[in-house]
Amino acid sequence: MLEKGKTTIVLFSGDYDKAMAAYIIANGAAAYDHEVTIFHTFWGLNALRKNEKIDVKKGFMEKMFGKMMPKGADKMGLSKMNFAGIGPKMIKNVMKKHNVMSLPNLIEMAQEQEVKLVACTMTMDLLGLQKEELLDDIDYAGVAAYLADAKDGHVNLFI
Amino acid sequence: MLEKGKTTIVLFSGDYDKAMAAYIIANGAAAYDHEVTIFHTFWGLNALRKNEKIDVKKGFMEKMFGKMMPKGADKMGLSKMNFAGIGPKMIKNVMKKHNVMSLPNLIEMAQEQEVKLVACTMTMDLLGLQKEELLDDIDYAGVAAYLADAKDGHVNLFI
Amino acid sequence: MLEKGKTTIVLFSGDYDKAMAAYIIANGAAAYDHEVTIFHTFWGLNALRKNEKIDVKKGFMEKMFGKMMPKGADKMGLSKMNFAGIGPKMIKNVMKKHNVMSLPNLIEMAQEQEVKLVACTMTMDLLGLQKEELLDDIDYAGVAAYLADAKDGHVNLFI
Repeated sequence: MLEKGKTTIVLFSGDYDKAMAAYIIANGAAAYDHEVTIFHTFWGLNALRKNEKIDVKKGFMEKMFGKMMPKGADKMGLSKMNFAGIGPKMIKNVMKKHNVMSLPNLIEMAQEQEVKLVACTMTMDLLGLQKEELLDDIDYAGVAAYLADAKDGHVNLFI
Repeated sequence: MLEKGKTTIVLFSGDYDKAMAAYIIANGAAAYDHEVTIFHTFWGLNALRKNEKIDVKKGFMEKMFGKMMPKGADKMGLSKMNFAGIGPKMIKNVMKKHNVMSLPNLIEMAQEQEVKLVACTMTMDLLGLQKEELLDDIDYAGVAAYLADAKDGHVNLFI
Repeated sequence: MLEKGKTTIVLFSGDYDKAMAAYIIANGAAAYDHEVTIFHTFWGLNALRKNEKIDVKKGFMEKMFGKMMPKGADKMGLSKMNFAGIGPKMIKNVMKKHNVMSLPNLIEMAQEQEVKLVACTMTMDLLGLQKEELLDDIDYAGVAAYLADAKDGHVNLFI
C-alpha cells in the first residue's frame, strides 16, 4: 500500500557547492526512506575521484583532462565567489563553525545510507577516467539506466 | 476529482537571468492554479535580500559574505555576458522595451499569487544572513520540508 | 493500459556540454518511446540558431546580442575549462575519437526522432532573435505551453 518515494539526481556540475546541494538533498531523501540515485556525468564525475594519484595507462588528451580536473570532492571549486581557491576555504571554515558536513563526509554518509552512486560510462570514456580512479562500491551505467530510474521517480533533478 | 497541480523549484543560483526563469515559471504555474513553492538555497537566497543595508550583529566572515553578495534581486549579475555589470543593464533596458517584468516585480507578483517563498535556514546560517535582512512574509525551512513538498510535486526543478 | 512516458527539458544554458547532456537525455528518452519536449529559453536558444548569418532587420541592441551570442550549436562554449575556446576543440576531438555524436548531430537525431523542439517566444523577443535565424521545423511557444507539457511529465529537468 505504502509507496516508497524515489529520488534521482543527475549531477552534471563539478562545483563544490552544487555537489553539496545534490548530496544534502540525496541524504535527506534517503533519511525519509526514498530510494535515491545520483547519476554522475561530465564534471560531476570529479566528485567520485579518489584524491590520490592513481597509476593507469592513458593517452595524451586523457592525461591532460586528468591533470586539469579536480582530484576528488575536496578539491572542487565554487560556482560563485571562487576567488582562485580562497572561496572554498572560506566556505569550508564557515561550514566547520556551523557543524555542516563537508562534501567528502556527505558522500560517505550517502554510501552508508545506500544511495546508489552511478558513474556515467560515456563520460568516463570521454574524459579518460578509469574505474581505478573512482571511489569503490559505486555503479557504472549509461543514460538508459538513468532514464529507467527517473521514469518512476517522484523527485528528479538536474544539478 | 480535479487534482490541483503542484510545482516546486529549488533556486540555488544567484544569477539574475536564472532567477528570472524560476520566477516566470513559478508565476505561470500559479496562474494555472498550481500550488507553488520556491525553495531559496545557497546563492539563490540573495534574491530574497532587502536592498537596503540592515544593521545586525555579525561575525567577521559573515560580514565579508554579506558585503560580497548582491543585496537583493536587482543587484544580481547574469550567468552569461555579465561584462562587469554592463550585461544586466543591457538586458534590463531590453526587458523594459519589450514590457517584460523585472525580477523584483516578478517576485512581488509571486507573493501576490501566494507562491510560497522559502529561505533555506541551513544556508542562512552558513552565509550569515538573518531574517531582518530578507523580505517580509516569507517562510523558513530546511531540506526536509522541501522534500515533503517535492514528493507530491508534478513539476520539480533545480535552477 | 500502457502509459507512454513523457519527458520535458527546459534548456536554459548556452553551454555546449550542458546542451549535449540535454540532447543525450532527450534522444535516450525518445528511443524508449517517451514523448519528449525541449523548451529552449534564454541562452539555450543559441542551440537552435542557424550557423550562417541571416539578413533580418534589427534594432541596435538586438544586433549587439546577435553578434555576441554563438551562432548555432557548434559555436557554443563549455561550462568548465573553456580556455578561450580551446576546451571545446579538445572535447570535440576526444568525442570524435570515442565515436560520441557532436551536438549538431544530436540535434538532428532529435528532430528525426520527433522530439519537439520549442523556442521560447518571450526570449526571442528579448534577445532579438527571429524565426528566420532559427532551425526549420521547430515550434514556438511560451511558458504556458511548457507547463501544460510538464504537468504530465514523468521526467522534468531544467538544464
